[in-house]
Amino acid sequence: MIVILKQNPDQQKVEELRAWLEQQDIRIHVSQGIHSTVLGLVGDTSQVDPDRIQTLEIVEAVKRVQEPYKKANRKFHPQDTVVMIGKVPVGGGGFAVMAGPCSVESREQLCEVAQAIKASGTQILRGGAFKPRTSPYAFQGMRESGIDLLLEAKKLTGLPIVTEIMDISHLDSFADVDCIQVGARNMQNFELLKELGHCKKPVLLKRGLSSTIQEWLMSAEYVMAGGNEQVILCERGIRTFETATRNTFDISAVPVVKEHSHLPIIMDPSHATGVARYVKPLAVAAAAIGADGLMIEVHNDPASAMCDGPQSLTPKQFDDMMQSVKTALTIRR
Amino acid sequence: MIVILKQNPDQQKVEELRAWLEQQDIRIHVSQGIHSTVLGLVGDTSQVDPDRIQTLEIVEAVKRVQEPYKKANRKFHPQDTVVMIGKVPVGGGGFAVMAGPCSVESREQLCEVAQAIKASGTQILRGGAFKPRTSPYAFQGMRESGIDLLLEAKKLTGLPIVTEIMDISHLDSFADVDCIQVGARNMQNFELLKELGHCKKPVLLKRGLSSTIQEWLMSAEYVMAGGNEQVILCERGIRTFETATRNTFDISAVPVVKEHSHLPIIMDPSHATGVARYVKPLAVAAAAIGADGLMIEVHNDPASAMCDGPQSLTPKQFDDMMQSVKTALTIRR
Amino acid sequence: MIVILKQNPDQQKVEELRAWLEQQDIRIHVSQGIHSTVLGLVGDTSQVDPDRIQTLEIVEAVKRVQEPYKKANRKFHPQDTVVMIGKVPVGGGGFAVMAGPCSVESREQLCEVAQAIKASGTQILRGGAFKPRTSPYAFQGMRESGIDLLLEAKKLTGLPIVTEIMDISHLDSFADVDCIQVGARNMQNFELLKELGHCKKPVLLKRGLSSTIQEWLMSAEYVMAGGNEQVILCERGIRTFETATRNTFDISAVPVVKEHSHLPIIMDPSHATGVARYVKPLAVAAAAIGADGLMIEVHNDPASAMCDGPQSLTPKQFDDMMQSVKTALTIRR
Amino acid sequence: MIVILKQNPDQQKVEELRAWLEQQDIRIHVSQGIHSTVLGLVGDTSQVDPDRIQTLEIVEAVKRVQEPYKKANRKFHPQDTVVMIGKVPVGGGGFAVMAGPCSVESREQLCEVAQAIKASGTQILRGGAFKPRTSPYAFQGMRESGIDLLLEAKKLTGLPIVTEIMDISHLDSFADVDCIQVGARNMQNFELLKELGHCKKPVLLKRGLSSTIQEWLMSAEYVMAGGNEQVILCERGIRTFETATRNTFDISAVPVVKEHSHLPIIMDPSHATGVARYVKPLAVAAAAIGADGLMIEVHNDPASAMCDGPQSLTPKQFDDMMQSVKTALTIRR
Repeated sequence: MIVILKQNPDQQKVEELRAWLEQQDIRIHVSQGIHSTVLGLVGDTSQVDPDRIQTLEIVEAVKRVQEPYKKANRKFHPQDTVVMIGKVPVGGGGFAVMAGPCSVESREQLCEVAQAIKASGTQILRGGAFKPRTSPYAFQGMRESGIDLLLEAKKLTGLPIVTEIMDISHLDSFADVDCIQVGARNMQNFELLKELGHCKKPVLLKRGLSSTIQEWLMSAEYVMAGGNEQVILCERGIRTFETATRNTFDISAVPVVKEHSHLPIIMDPSHATGVARYVKPLAVAAAAIGADGLMIEVHNDPASAMCDGPQSLTPKQFDDMMQSVKTALTIRR
Repeated sequence: MIVILKQNPDQQKVEELRAWLEQQDIRIHVSQGIHSTVLGLVGDTSQVDPDRIQTLEIVEAVKRVQEPYKKANRKFHPQDTVVMIGKVPVGGGGFAVMAGPCSVESREQLCEVAQAIKASGTQILRGGAFKPRTSPYAFQGMRESGIDLLLEAKKLTGLPIVTEIMDISHLDSFADVDCIQVGARNMQNFELLKELGHCKKPVLLKRGLSSTIQEWLMSAEYVMAGGNEQVILCERGIRTFETATRNTFDISAVPVVKEHSHLPIIMDPSHATGVARYVKPLAVAAAAIGADGLMIEVHNDPASAMCDGPQSLTPKQFDDMMQSVKTALTIRR
Repeated sequence: MIVILKQNPDQQKVEELRAWLEQQDIRIHVSQGIHSTVLGLVGDTSQVDPDRIQTLEIVEAVKRVQEPYKKANRKFHPQDTVVMIGKVPVGGGGFAVMAGPCSVESREQLCEVAQAIKASGTQILRGGAFKPRTSPYAFQGMRESGIDLLLEAKKLTGLPIVTEIMDISHLDSFADVDCIQVGARNMQNFELLKELGHCKKPVLLKRGLSSTIQEWLMSAEYVMAGGNEQVILCERGIRTFETATRNTFDISAVPVVKEHSHLPIIMDPSHATGVARYVKPLAVAAAAIGADGLMIEVHNDPASAMCDGPQSLTPKQFDDMMQSVKTALTIRR
Repeated sequence: MIVILKQNPDQQKVEELRAWLEQQDIRIHVSQGIHSTVLGLVGDTSQVDPDRIQTLEIVEAVKRVQEPYKKANRKFHPQDTVVMIGKVPVGGGGFAVMAGPCSVESREQLCEVAQAIKASGTQILRGGAFKPRTSPYAFQGMRESGIDLLLEAKKLTGLPIVTEIMDISHLDSFADVDCIQVGARNMQNFELLKELGHCKKPVLLKRGLSSTIQEWLMSAEYVMAGGNEQVILCERGIRTFETATRNTFDISAVPVVKEHSHLPIIMDPSHATGVARYVKPLAVAAAAIGADGLMIEVHNDPASAMCDGPQSLTPKQFDDMMQSVKTALTIRR
């Protein structure tokens, strides 16, 4: 961390700052200029609050040099992390596809979709039981009974399941779920993240609509700081001014995350675009760029889907997408 | 709601759509053009999911004409709602100021600030006990014991208190709190909103960093749909590309919200800008434009604040701000 | 400027960097840490390209400490600049209102509006002759003959005029115009800015839709670097995700610009919101916060306006707004 | 276009609106509801200004159904347009790579780079002669003499050249240039676009930093409306809140543009990310998703580049990227 002092600072206050930093095992290198003095802070600054220094009268500016995350940081953990969802590895060079309906609606619907996606080569079943909906009047998901249906589909197909949690109090219902998803709107629900840090299950952490990659990694750090290092990141589009797609699919997140973190990153073009016909090209691009997998919405009858129909693929469209994705994977060697 | 059909749609599918809509008590007016047919949907469309219609093969586009919120909508409730925090009315033409430290840190700190802001004319004490922090390594608030201190400060000064909730499971600790705040990061924590809908206390709902005003009103609708109509909206800056201020203070939200909703709206320039010296001018602007109040961070020693020091005013700066705000209020008549 | 070197940098390359910087009259203070070395650059760094340093193999990061603008910078010019439009001062504590139609459409329209706004207390007439329109099929303005009509209206009313330039080649037509406006879309049309730097007329520089305040001040610097220091800044809304208003009116720009620059800043709520009924509250807020003036669209018959009708006030609405603005100005003392 | 009238509108004003529309050869279908009346406008509405209708007292809302661009619209021109740069086709299924230095700096630099990129399989040479720079103190390009050097490099290598124009008055200098580039900051410099519409050369139109895809296509329409239909679109990142990359590379623009327009679209990951090490993965993704080509910055000595060094590849890195891109192209069949 670099602290730039104002011109002619009160020397006693400078001494107080030095003393306070040294108490925290931070050493200080001073660089004296004409218009400003620069303090270089050396040591573990991840617990030094830059805001607190910024507020001091003698301080012009504070600049962080190192990333504020440690456990999620590739610097301290150079090898790729591989997270197991059931027996399916995510990360480390493979490619894991999770697919299924936005909402679990019925046994028939779910089993039909699960069998279809399995036939197309998908390794993991996704489906929403607890549904975050913008409107209180929209369908809110089948909740606990949706999870029961997912478990039935798992038994039927052998596919491990991933589904979204919306509140800590529902955690018991997730006992047999293979991977717990934290949705974009809960990416900074810190109490939930802390609780999942004490959990022994993989956590799939979606990026918030307006979260920077650094904030996203800090949310992963919340889970990891609690002891659970099985975190999978999922990019699902960020909010921008463009309205041609529902959100803007930030494909650059793949190389950026790979550089700064060892955690796996998968891509969700269904939510990012909100448009079924854009899902396949973006899935292919995600495979080509080196993402660790995909999350795709598939519905046996999109026009009757209780939510997010416009972005769901039919099993036939999904199978076509999978063929293209497999072809794209051939270029990754 | 307007549904635009594609050219030469399958007539049987059009009939199916009509039948499905009519089952929901929606009547349909058809306008036949050369290149497209337009269906005008008449009736209560707030529960018709436009996404579901959009996905139909025969549909080109769906446009909503009416707002999807009802209880928060001024059309159905023309008079301003006045929410009481203790004995202090918020909304309806008055101006309520809530002030206090970002985080409750100690009895001395809180009582000193509370007495100072009361002396400056503030009617409500705010202070964070449960703190949402981007980093798991940052100070997380005093939690339950912070609420105890707020209650002590309330006893001492007579000021009603508002403080933030981060999880449903903490609700019991809020039994004696006068107003429960939902933070920006939890604006779409729908399970929390539903729970607060069954609560008999005022809810102060901060706008999410990347939430549209319509989404914000939909979150208010979640609380109101549960039976609790005491919702106060609080604008605290939105996330944009500009970095000169931490967020962009969306002052236009005042006239927009006043037009579409009857709920009170207050403004938080401390979080919006993140810079203490911009708080006063923005507070004055908020008073001038017709907001229903302010939320301001005040700390007796900002340089030692455990969080958000750079944006906190000292009691002296706050008193100066209050004088300017009072002057600004004289032009509202 | 602060340069953070990577761990164990090639010492010869460090020496090369030092030599290159010293050639540019920059002195260097070295702060040696365990994990990184920090170079503090002392001297006039406004001409040192941080991008160029960033690219060096030995460099981890470059952080600018000082603003890259000089002539527009309040540090080097503490007093407010006052720009004269005709005999009307803009900046320095007064409040200048520019009003008129988005597009000049006819002698009758312009003269009627000009007389009406003068009667309401406006000191400057604005009107578009050359019109930047998103669509090539939309009305493109009366061009040269529009300027002739503005000059007639100036003769009739005595009001000085401001109108937008779209290309250098039109400059001759602006010989008798009192202030030349550069539109938001041309804020980074650097060739045009350079040309206006050689001009002896005031320049009103609108902020680009997605320009940071720093970029905006850099564009002002382009004009000033050419020798023309008569620049007025005009905030007109930035592009964000919010669609309730056409753009987001960044009112914080007033205190931010006032802190960093000595140039006057006026506010254009008509373009920012795109909605006539939001113009008055935002104009009042702009007056209260300390802006140096307003730019407002007024049309004698908004429903027939050839462009931007929805945001134009009628002369009667404008007169009402002016009364409220005058009241708001009473609090600035 | 759909016009939604307010409840109980003044019937005479409705008649006036109908008459005005019918004068423009628009036919109107009325759909009478309980709370609102909807007018469906049939005919060529591309020249009807929705803003003008919006402003009428009797109108609640106006919604455009059809895109406002015609010549750029795939609906009216289903086949892909192929634009020839010299003898190199852009669009129609092939893949054209344009590479070269951000700025032309010297004969040696340019020729070295040009020969290197040719050896790697590039078909088109790009290089900046007129440079738009944020700071007036930064290197502004070699201007006319830069174009001379580009022409020399063209003679030497046989590669056709593309370079950016910044002002109409420079057009003569572009007489022997093969393709004229319009930069992001000039995307809505409408006078320039109109002038290029009368030109017989291909125009490479970069997307503005905060321009929607629709606005971008409208700018293409400006050129095409003048008679020049040789327009190539180039995505180069949009401005969002994320700072990990300089801009956000909107890869979804490829399928969106392909759906709505017949014009070729190429991708510029160098400017989008501003970081050399992210260029290769994004170039591969662009090839995989179906873009019509790439624009890449290459410099023989990035650390000495006079601008944009951090995003430039060395010839060796570029050659490596080209190998990966060629591999990625194998999946497009």
